[in-house]
Amino acid sequence: MQRANSRASCGRDFHCCPDIGIALETACKAGYDFVCLPLVNPRFKREFIGGPSKTRKCALTRSDMCLSSQDWGSLVVGKVSPWLQLDADFYNTRKNSEQALKEELTWSAHLGLPAVLMPLNSGKCSNQSQCLNEYMASSYFQQQYWIQVPLLSPADQCDPVIEGIDDDMEEENLEDTWQWWDKFRSLCDSNRRLGVALELTPDLPSEALMERWLSEPVKAVVVPTSLFLTNKKGYPVLSKAHQALIKNLFKLEVQVIISGQERHPEKTIRAYQQYMDHLWQSQDPVDTVGQFAKGYEDFLQSPLQPLMDNLESQTYEIFEKDPIKYSQYQKAVYLALLDRVPLEERDKKESVLMVVGAGRGPLVRASLAAADEAGCKLKKVYAVEKNPNAVITLRNIKEAEWGDLVEIISCDMREWEAPEKTDILVSELLGSFGDNELSPECLDGAQRYLKDDGISIPAKYTSYLAPLMSCKLYNEVRGSKVERGKPPEAPFEMPYVVRLHNCSILDDPQPVFIFSHPNKAASIDNCRFKSLEFKSSEAAVVHGFAGYFDTQLYKDVMLSIVPETHSPCMFSWFPIYFPIRVPIKVEKNSLITIDIWRRCTSKNVWYEWSFQCGGQTSPIHNPKGRSYTIGL
Amino acid sequence: MQRANSRASCGRDFHCCPDIGIALETACKAGYDFVCLPLVNPRFKREFIGGPSKTRKCALTRSDMCLSSQDWGSLVVGKVSPWLQLDADFYNTRKNSEQALKEELTWSAHLGLPAVLMPLNSGKCSNQSQCLNEYMASSYFQQQYWIQVPLLSPADQCDPVIEGIDDDMEEENLEDTWQWWDKFRSLCDSNRRLGVALELTPDLPSEALMERWLSEPVKAVVVPTSLFLTNKKGYPVLSKAHQALIKNLFKLEVQVIISGQERHPEKTIRAYQQYMDHLWQSQDPVDTVGQFAKGYEDFLQSPLQPLMDNLESQTYEIFEKDPIKYSQYQKAVYLALLDRVPLEERDKKESVLMVVGAGRGPLVRASLAAADEAGCKLKKVYAVEKNPNAVITLRNIKEAEWGDLVEIISCDMREWEAPEKTDILVSELLGSFGDNELSPECLDGAQRYLKDDGISIPAKYTSYLAPLMSCKLYNEVRGSKVERGKPPEAPFEMPYVVRLHNCSILDDPQPVFIFSHPNKAASIDNCRFKSLEFKSSEAAVVHGFAGYFDTQLYKDVMLSIVPETHSPCMFSWFPIYFPIRVPIKVEKNSLITIDIWRRCTSKNVWYEWSFQCGGQTSPIHNPKGRSYTIGL
Repeated sequence: MQRANSRASCGRDFHCCPDIGIALETACKAGYDFVCLPLVNPRFKREFIGGPSKTRKCALTRSDMCLSSQDWGSLVVGKVSPWLQLDADFYNTRKNSEQALKEELTWSAHLGLPAVLMPLNSGKCSNQSQCLNEYMASSYFQQQYWIQVPLLSPADQCDPVIEGIDDDMEEENLEDTWQWWDKFRSLCDSNRRLGVALELTPDLPSEALMERWLSEPVKAVVVPTSLFLTNKKGYPVLSKAHQALIKNLFKLEVQVIISGQERHPEKTIRAYQQYMDHLWQSQDPVDTVGQFAKGYEDFLQSPLQPLMDNLESQTYEIFEKDPIKYSQYQKAVYLALLDRVPLEERDKKESVLMVVGAGRGPLVRASLAAADEAGCKLKKVYAVEKNPNAVITLRNIKEAEWGDLVEIISCDMREWEAPEKTDILVSELLGSFGDNELSPECLDGAQRYLKDDGISIPAKYTSYLAPLMSCKLYNEVRGSKVERGKPPEAPFEMPYVVRLHNCSILDDPQPVFIFSHPNKAASIDNCRFKSLEFKSSEAAVVHGFAGYFDTQLYKDVMLSIVPETHSPCMFSWFPIYFPIRVPIKVEKNSLITIDIWRRCTSKNVWYEWSFQCGGQTSPIHNPKGRSYTIGL
Repeated sequence: MQRANSRASCGRDFHCCPDIGIALETACKAGYDFVCLPLVNPRFKREFIGGPSKTRKCALTRSDMCLSSQDWGSLVVGKVSPWLQLDADFYNTRKNSEQALKEELTWSAHLGLPAVLMPLNSGKCSNQSQCLNEYMASSYFQQQYWIQVPLLSPADQCDPVIEGIDDDMEEENLEDTWQWWDKFRSLCDSNRRLGVALELTPDLPSEALMERWLSEPVKAVVVPTSLFLTNKKGYPVLSKAHQALIKNLFKLEVQVIISGQERHPEKTIRAYQQYMDHLWQSQDPVDTVGQFAKGYEDFLQSPLQPLMDNLESQTYEIFEKDPIKYSQYQKAVYLALLDRVPLEERDKKESVLMVVGAGRGPLVRASLAAADEAGCKLKKVYAVEKNPNAVITLRNIKEAEWGDLVEIISCDMREWEAPEKTDILVSELLGSFGDNELSPECLDGAQRYLKDDGISIPAKYTSYLAPLMSCKLYNEVRGSKVERGKPPEAPFEMPYVVRLHNCSILDDPQPVFIFSHPNKAASIDNCRFKSLEFKSSEAAVVHGFAGYFDTQLYKDVMLSIVPETHSPCMFSWFPIYFPIRVPIKVEKNSLITIDIWRRCTSKNVWYEWSFQCGGQTSPIHNPKGRSYTIGL
């Protein structure tokens, strides 16, 4: 069960195991990291209700003395008996299964096994869920339960061509094994100790159906040896489709379980493990953003409140390293200067620039470089910054580098009385959801010192959202501590900046709120309301929505974190996640309506949001900003 | 707004009101209890965004000095402006409406009005909900908001016969105004300050549709004068259907609002109020159970734990007064004795009786009377009781009344070593859900001193359940305090004994668990699991389920609290309510699956339950009895 990041963690499944020492030794020698073993002899079918073996006095299974506790705790995944039928209609069968399961689970905890594998064979699983759920509620040992779900139900793996039934009917009648899991998980209240062991089948479901599993806590993928083909050299290999699927699952750091008999005896059982390792090694290299985000996957962060709090040096440092953002800003300032200063006036006309929220100076630097590149003269660059610590940095740079051309203003841009008006107003006040760090309010305050025909960079920004499924994120939110003085639903009523990973986006993002600058409206209103309609192509669970933004800095110079148009390599912003208090299940092709409000007072801005889908209506989240506001 | 129980509380709606003093005086003189007035002059349409009146300097509405605070606070319901369109697509209209609404709500709070009336005209009401919800979150004044919903949508009140559209289509396309309300309420998270003002329409919806309103917080019924017919004497009267509906609503203690112009001028406006009072007076008289239950409607009680706690004198006293229960027991013992003792042996054969859980003796008394009536001789009646306080009562009665025939045993029936076996074992250990006070466990323990052919009274009992809709009960549960050491979901994970009132049962009850006594199984198992499927005939919200029971005391002698077969006048048991953590909306004709488990250990018994409906799966409630168990 130990896994090194440099290779796939691979386990060997044993159908039965006469000698556990030999089994472990064989598997380890063949390069496997762990074994899956039946907890009890498969032929030892106990009878609790009545029958000849009810009073049998012999021991239930092998002794715990045959391995050290450390080995039990790191090398063995226990398998519950395959004969259990916890949802049988026949009382004795069900009852017997309940007793046997409890005995096996108790035994696995006694051994300290890290995980137990339990097959899920049908959507009729209420009682199986109840048994495991009750057991989890009574046991404090943090064991994992891997629910083994086949990708396709056994019924659908038969030949689908039945005369007289058209294809559409077939599609309708397909048993969706994800629904089995969803029901099981829901009944167990999405307990964190539940994971999925996804069992590969010869045929694979559609991509949309597959995609959903990426939002689930998939802990292992079970690969039967029967799926392997044989390559020219006689080695076992998988089809392209199976390869692609496994590589996708590797992103979730799943472990592999090789099940079934050896089918390439001359290459030995080691060949399967080696092939898995080969797949692991041949994953696509991680991109810049992925590298930057390493370790932050699905980690919830509270959005910055740069207006209320002052950023720390480290935060500036990280964001200044973005390889794209400032070159785009430079390009935007360059184009804006060229547009404002006709060729014939380049050596005479002097432009004024203001950078509001200058931080430690990256935009000042980009602006100066742009003017230089454009061959335009600057009269003055005002660098306005409210954080006194950043001002110290700026003043040092001025002394060392910029001289009189740049004037440092230690002041909140909303309060500053500028000595003159500016040609270009440059700012970077955007959050993951565009306006969520109050760029609109700040720029509305700052635009009074912009010339009538002056340019704001950015000129415009748009937020986007899309419904999302992620049991992981939902559980992260649910596990958050409620801050003192906040209502109990507070964790569900605030957005989180998060590197989305173990999740699935249920439909394409759609634009939400648009802000343009300068805002020449007679009376400015930054409140917004938008109602958006999405459609889930497959049955799914709505766990909230993902938020993104893009911005037009100037003309066609854009920055974007919307997946389809994401600026390559830009890592300054992760998406934002707006949770839902209670997940809503939606059926295939269901509409998902999301309403979202941006609300403002003179002191605060906040969002409220609600969902209508699958016939359910959520409450409006965060009324009056009771759980979360952004301070002005 | 003050209401006396002896008459209907009736208000007069004013479309406009030039002089509030005169309006009030007129209405009060005509017998009305309150008036409904526009908060702002209907013609004073404000413009916040722009336009000629934006800068108008005159006062918004009449001064607060024109009434005393006490009158504002008890005699006036405020009406928001009818021109508000909070969900308009056009920005200015929406924005103007938002500002105006906020102004009006703030004003109504300033006046201290007890309630504000707000029309709901469509299912497109997200923004209207948001506005009111945000306002409620910011205001601590406990004002009520009466959302005025028409029984039929204006569209459906037109002539429904449209050529080329068949009836079924029509039915499908009907706009269900309850759905408007349900959406509005859901978005506002079922805020307790929201009520319904149900507006009567000339046509009425089907009974099933009407029934649903009885589970909603209907606070008022708006009766337009145009609905009144004229009787022979020239007085205004309502149709039978409208009368029946209003009488139904009176059970919820709704207040009446008479709206629209006077249409019977010679009888004056007073005639409408008098007619309403007449309807109030002509309600069916309250039955025995209703009288007994007065004040307990929708009041949540924790089920008794008679095994763990000792009942109090007062509790015995109440239950001993039941006019039916003990006469049924007497009948059962009578029939059992007749069956056991052939006519020819009546004067020789002596029977032994045991009453287990004798309390203060009502079953002993009933048994003695039965033997007397049957002409059968008794050898001994053992009265076993574990509560030492009740034993004092029993010993006093023995001394005074029963003599040597009755022997008082101060002991837990499960531990007592009886000196002889009994012919008949009589007990009353049943709870509202049959087995929920652990009758099965107790009788399993006691049956060892029952003769092989002995009789248990009761012989059998069955629990029943049915899905239920009740915003009221859900809110009551949600408002319960979480006991120390219990999880936050605890209030939703325990059943409550409750007189169901403001609720609607969504389908007929079905049997759940059956227990028969004596239980001759080789190994007794009182765990149970049942999966039941219901169907909601109309769109609804599942707020949990109602539980009932019936019991066969002996042969055809029954006791029942199942609505269809309820023993007349028996008040010993209210139904039981099992809540759901998150209400689930179901569409018309949806299946509602309820799974329920009865779980046992040697110390405790508890229920777990879960719901599957409308595509949603609830978590299993109360796993391992974490929130609620019944102690053995």
